[in-house]
Amino acid sequence: MELQNIEHIGIAVKDLQVSIKFYEEVLGLKCYKIEEIEDQQVKTAFFKVGNTKIELLESITPDGSIAKHIEKRGEGLHHIAYAVDDLRAALREAESKGIQLIDREPRKGAEGLNIAFLHPKSTQGVLTELCEKPKE
Amino acid sequence: MELQNIEHIGIAVKDLQVSIKFYEEVLGLKCYKIEEIEDQQVKTAFFKVGNTKIELLESITPDGSIAKHIEKRGEGLHHIAYAVDDLRAALREAESKGIQLIDREPRKGAEGLNIAFLHPKSTQGVLTELCEKPKE
Repeated sequence: MELQNIEHIGIAVKDLQVSIKFYEEVLGLKCYKIEEIEDQQVKTAFFKVGNTKIELLESITPDGSIAKHIEKRGEGLHHIAYAVDDLRAALREAESKGIQLIDREPRKGAEGLNIAFLHPKSTQGVLTELCEKPKE
Repeated sequence: MELQNIEHIGIAVKDLQVSIKFYEEVLGLKCYKIEEIEDQQVKTAFFKVGNTKIELLESITPDGSIAKHIEKRGEGLHHIAYAVDDLRAALREAESKGIQLIDREPRKGAEGLNIAFLHPKSTQGVLTELCEKPKE
């Protein structure tokens, strides 16, 4: 498959407001959007850095995947998201190469993107997201 | 401080050759450099993705920090590295804002960059590297 760029890095945080303050006041980045994604049980905050983005993720439920991640491993790096041109084709190719798909079909993610996750068991421990801009 | 872009994402792996094969054959990226950094007890492999890079890290000693990371957390995302224009100034600013510095002064990292790490305890669980291109 052809990965165009790193669309964003996902970071699990306990308290989005505390973390936004840290990223703005200490790292000097600017939060340009806060978005709740019910489907994923998360509230997210986005920051542009050069041509890519940081996505902070706070769980909106005690048993969401971000809450579980933090319980097990603490706050920190959660996933890497690559932009692809054709998400369905990328998923079929990944599957044909032995990758375990978390999402067999694209679904809606933050920022209006079509997204799908690959299971870290089959991607060397890295939870991997593929993102595609919706075609007009 | 002004973070210019994400210079690279560091990923801890058990076996660099196995991982290079995965990144090339499954993800379709091309390894353009393998470099051993004795100072950090790692062998690294680099891949360009858009305007940023993936850095795979394999420990060259059983008790190196990457080996310990894998023992504790398994393979996976290890650190995020931001490019800055003036590393010394960025370190002084970080310190003044309460960040715990792993490296109080820049040292040489992969690809000839001057680098320094910030302690994840003070960066919301994310091991953070700052990188600066050496001035001519």
